[in-house]
Amino acid sequence: MTAFYKKIRSAIAQSGSYVCVGLDPDPQKLPVQFIRRSSDGIAIFLQEIIEATVPYAAAFKLNLAFYEALGVEGWRILKDVVQAIPPDRIKIADGKRGDIGNSARFYASAIFDDYHFDAATVNPYMGKDSIEHFIERSDKGIFILSLTSNPGAADFQFVGGKRKLFEVVAAKAVEWNTKQNIGLVTGASKPEYLLSLRKIAPDMPFLIPGIGAQGGDLKQVVKNALKGYSYGGIVNSSRGIIYASNQGDFAQAAADAAKELRDSINKMIA
Amino acid sequence: MTAFYKKIRSAIAQSGSYVCVGLDPDPQKLPVQFIRRSSDGIAIFLQEIIEATVPYAAAFKLNLAFYEALGVEGWRILKDVVQAIPPDRIKIADGKRGDIGNSARFYASAIFDDYHFDAATVNPYMGKDSIEHFIERSDKGIFILSLTSNPGAADFQFVGGKRKLFEVVAAKAVEWNTKQNIGLVTGASKPEYLLSLRKIAPDMPFLIPGIGAQGGDLKQVVKNALKGYSYGGIVNSSRGIIYASNQGDFAQAAADAAKELRDSINKMIA
Repeated sequence: MTAFYKKIRSAIAQSGSYVCVGLDPDPQKLPVQFIRRSSDGIAIFLQEIIEATVPYAAAFKLNLAFYEALGVEGWRILKDVVQAIPPDRIKIADGKRGDIGNSARFYASAIFDDYHFDAATVNPYMGKDSIEHFIERSDKGIFILSLTSNPGAADFQFVGGKRKLFEVVAAKAVEWNTKQNIGLVTGASKPEYLLSLRKIAPDMPFLIPGIGAQGGDLKQVVKNALKGYSYGGIVNSSRGIIYASNQGDFAQAAADAAKELRDSINKMIA
Repeated sequence: MTAFYKKIRSAIAQSGSYVCVGLDPDPQKLPVQFIRRSSDGIAIFLQEIIEATVPYAAAFKLNLAFYEALGVEGWRILKDVVQAIPPDRIKIADGKRGDIGNSARFYASAIFDDYHFDAATVNPYMGKDSIEHFIERSDKGIFILSLTSNPGAADFQFVGGKRKLFEVVAAKAVEWNTKQNIGLVTGASKPEYLLSLRKIAPDMPFLIPGIGAQGGDLKQVVKNALKGYSYGGIVNSSRGIIYASNQGDFAQAAADAAKELRDSINKMIA
C-alpha cells in the first residue's frame, strides 16, 4: 500500500469518519463577529472550525479559489490554515489544476512542497501530460475530476458513445495508477452513475462532493460508492458544515453538523 | 462590437502584429545576470522583456502556474508585470480555471478586478456553470480550451462520435457567446483540425499556443485559422521569445524573435 492510500485508510480509522470538511472562506458568509475584521479574522474563523470539527473529520479540503480571491494575503492564510490541520488528517488542495507539463510541474510543486498538502484535485481535459507531474509524486494523492456534482456536468462529461467522457477518464485513471496514488472526484448529485464508476475503478478512493448544499442523495452514495469498497472514499461538505450558524455558536454548530454527517454515513455503511 | 472584441482588433492594428508573448518566468531559465537575484530579478527581467517586445506584440499571456510557484511573492510580481504592459495591449491570465459557480466567481473576480487582466483562459470540463461568472463579464474576454497543443490532448479531446469533444466544446462556446466576448484556445500543433473548428466558430478570436517550443506548423495555422476570418486570433510563443538568449543580449534577442514571428505571420496572411 502506498503512503497516500495508507494515509487515507488511517485517517478514516483515526477519526472513525468518512467526512471531509470543505474550508471555503466566503467573506460574506462569515459569522457576524468576524465580518468587520480583516483577513486575520478569516484565519481565526477557519482555525476554530478545524478545532471544532477535527474529531468528526478524516479530511479537510481547501478550495483554492476562495484563497486566491483574498489577494496576496490569501496565500498566507492558506499556509496558516493548512498548518492548523493535524498531521494525521488528509489535507486536500482543491484547485482542479490542469496544464501542460512545464506549468503542471510548478502547480504540483507549489501545492505539495510550499503549502504541504497531501493531495490535490486535477482537471483531466488536457490529458496525461497535464497531470503527470502530480501523478509521479508517489508520496501524494491525486483526485482526477471524473463526474462532477454541478448542473453543467451534463454539458461535456456525457459526450461519447457507449462509454461517456467521465467513464473514459475513470478508465484512464485506472491505467495511469501505477503508483497507487490516484483517486476520482465523483459527484454525489448523480449517485446512479457511481455504480458504473465503481465497475471501472473498484479499488480507488473517491472524493465525493455535492452532499448538503448541492443536494446529493447520501444513502445512494454510500451504497453505490463506499460500502464494501477497499478504499471507499471521503464525502465532502463545505457550506453545510462551516456555515451551519453565523452566530456566536458557529463552531459548535459546525461540530454538530460534521458529527451528524459522520454518524449518518457510519450508520448506512454498517 | 463588444469592448473585448474591439480591443483585440485594435491591439492587432496598433501593433501590426498577431503575436502574443507568453510571460512564463522559470527561475532556472533566466538570463545569467538574474539567476542569483531574488524575486525582484524576475520582475525586472519580465519588465525588460515587455519593453523590448511590445512593438511586435498584440498581447501578453501570463501562465499563472509560474507565478503561483514563486509563493506569496509571485502574486506581487504578477501584479507588477500586468501593470507594466501598456493599456492598449491585451493582457491574458492563462490559468485554465474551471470550478463551480461559487468558486468561479472568486476566480473571475481575482483575475479581472484584483489583477486587471483583459481576458482569461478557462477549462470547460465542468460545463457552463463553471465558467458563467467569466462569461457574464461583457467587458472581459474568455478563451475556452477546445483543442490544446500538448500530446495529452489525444487522451480525451477526441472522445465522441461524429463530433469530438473539442468540437462539442466549440459549438457550445458559440451558443454561449451572447455577449460576444468568447474565444477558443486552439493548439497550433494540430493545424488540420483548425479548419473544422473554423467551420463551427468562424467569427471567434482564437488564442493559438504551440508555436515554437511545441512545434506547430505556422503556415497551416495562418491558412486554416487566421487568414480571412473577422477576428483571426493571436499566436502565442513563450519560451521561443523570452528565452531566446540567456545572456546579456536577452532583451534584444526576445525582440528579434517576436519581430521574426510577427513578420512571418504577416507575410503569410498578406
